[in-house]
Amino acid sequence: MSRVIRIHRIGGPEVLQIDDIDVPAPNAGEVQIDVKAIGINRAEVMYRTGQYTIEPRLPSRLGYEASGVVAAVGSGVKDFAVGDAVSVVPAFSFADYGMYGERVNAPVHAVVKHPPSLSFEDAAATWMMFTTAYGALIEIGRLQEGETVLIGAASSSVGLAAIQIANMVGAIPVALTRSEKKRDALLAAGAAHVIAGDGADLPEKVMALTQGRGARMAFDPVGGPAAAYQLKALCAYGIFFQYGALDARDIPVPVMDLLSKDLTVRGYRLFEITGDPQKLAHAKHFITDGLASGALKPSIDRVFGFDEMADAHRYMEAGAQVGKIVVTV
Amino acid sequence: MSRVIRIHRIGGPEVLQIDDIDVPAPNAGEVQIDVKAIGINRAEVMYRTGQYTIEPRLPSRLGYEASGVVAAVGSGVKDFAVGDAVSVVPAFSFADYGMYGERVNAPVHAVVKHPPSLSFEDAAATWMMFTTAYGALIEIGRLQEGETVLIGAASSSVGLAAIQIANMVGAIPVALTRSEKKRDALLAAGAAHVIAGDGADLPEKVMALTQGRGARMAFDPVGGPAAAYQLKALCAYGIFFQYGALDARDIPVPVMDLLSKDLTVRGYRLFEITGDPQKLAHAKHFITDGLASGALKPSIDRVFGFDEMADAHRYMEAGAQVGKIVVTV
Repeated sequence: MSRVIRIHRIGGPEVLQIDDIDVPAPNAGEVQIDVKAIGINRAEVMYRTGQYTIEPRLPSRLGYEASGVVAAVGSGVKDFAVGDAVSVVPAFSFADYGMYGERVNAPVHAVVKHPPSLSFEDAAATWMMFTTAYGALIEIGRLQEGETVLIGAASSSVGLAAIQIANMVGAIPVALTRSEKKRDALLAAGAAHVIAGDGADLPEKVMALTQGRGARMAFDPVGGPAAAYQLKALCAYGIFFQYGALDARDIPVPVMDLLSKDLTVRGYRLFEITGDPQKLAHAKHFITDGLASGALKPSIDRVFGFDEMADAHRYMEAGAQVGKIVVTV
Repeated sequence: MSRVIRIHRIGGPEVLQIDDIDVPAPNAGEVQIDVKAIGINRAEVMYRTGQYTIEPRLPSRLGYEASGVVAAVGSGVKDFAVGDAVSVVPAFSFADYGMYGERVNAPVHAVVKHPPSLSFEDAAATWMMFTTAYGALIEIGRLQEGETVLIGAASSSVGLAAIQIANMVGAIPVALTRSEKKRDALLAAGAAHVIAGDGADLPEKVMALTQGRGARMAFDPVGGPAAAYQLKALCAYGIFFQYGALDARDIPVPVMDLLSKDLTVRGYRLFEITGDPQKLAHAKHFITDGLASGALKPSIDRVFGFDEMADAHRYMEAGAQVGKIVVTV
């Protein structure tokens, strides 16, 4: 019997319930992991409250990220052996797998050996933030050395990951944030520049920072009317990635900017990368290299115990964190 | 001395003036052409009235499209010889070249041998419409057999070109038009389906035509608020090309559609293709093949004489044409 966290109904953090269940032996193509740490994601909060893209079939497991030690492997699994330290990439549906547990099964394509220098806490906090940012900036956007990228909601874990990835390839990350109070933290996190405020003067400020050229890319989970300022701050053939919907209002795209600069506005979700074996392999390679060299380092805000999962969710819903929330087993 | 049409001031069609000038011998990399026919474009109307993306330095030549016979070649020109029948692709600026003349010079990268089956009138009407549609649908969008493409302002010359190109690759062109009165003409022009109206029921109609999948692409010169209906009619990873600004208002992009379908909204102009030697070579190859096989055929609405250039512009401004307006020399 293993302790696994499931939800038996939709609701507040209190519906996260520890169940003692028999975790079956791994099937063909699965890896069984004794979990050491779990990364907590907004997607899981949304899933628990019934607001996610897929509807839970109750009782349901959940959880996209974990790290631990291989306990067993299913048939056909050649790249992992019992005792390997591994972590899990969000490359599956909660209809099939969930990482909130002391012992879990994961599909082999989602499992990765992390550098030995990485703690289990850091490994559990790695894959959502870095893979999300990597997919837009590198795999699709092909961000190059010397190019400027605007990073919306820069103090989120994905925003911090984007800052690190931009620096890793020699690009210039410009952090966008609402108020001045996170300026020093964002500069310390690697932002080349920080632009705070509502965005009306964003185009002017970005043009000043880029000798009038504009930024090559923007990477933003907010959207809404203010996104138009980012579009006006882009250069010719610039690309705006929208990877969240924190502002659910329409983005008013200014046609003359779109046309005169041949801009691209692109909706983007992590699963575009993790659902494609070749792109996922590129992502694992890029991020593992970055972790090993120290160019990439997960940013953890706070660690909770396994029995405190509901508190970890409450803390995320309060929204004061800078970086990842992790639960240890 | 040759007769060349120039503007000496910004204004109405009457500023199109026939000047007798000495056309210099072609420079290195230039081809001199005895013009037989000229294709008329909205860009030239906008240039004449001071509304184009570049401002005229007066007096100024103008004209993007012509066909004729090679009269001389500059040094280094190897692919063309005196007497060759050629036509001209819009791959230059009016600051440097203009095709409104009995004898003109053109940069060699913009010159192409058209299939012998093509009349000079058809050849002069070919390159703007087919290159514009080719660039979005094929070079950037990679439209595939069996995919559905929505074509805005379908009775324009570029719209008609898009219908033909979609059919050439086995895709399914759906013509969008404001009223029912052009339905039969658009079906005759090759549209698989015609959707008329203001667009509010467009998503529902497109879903019905595509077994609920949605269209892979939309190609539209209008934009504005109605463009949002086209976005809602796209499938996952669908792409919306905006290639004009007939409606200058913002496009209100619905964030949940953008995000849940990983959509792309893309500003696009012809010069993205004609300004890149490799892409231009691909375009010439594709279009020449299509013309030779009969899959592509320019659609000419009306032909004017060289002395009637002002009338040709007046006719374009009246806006009743279906297909190209051509001037013969």
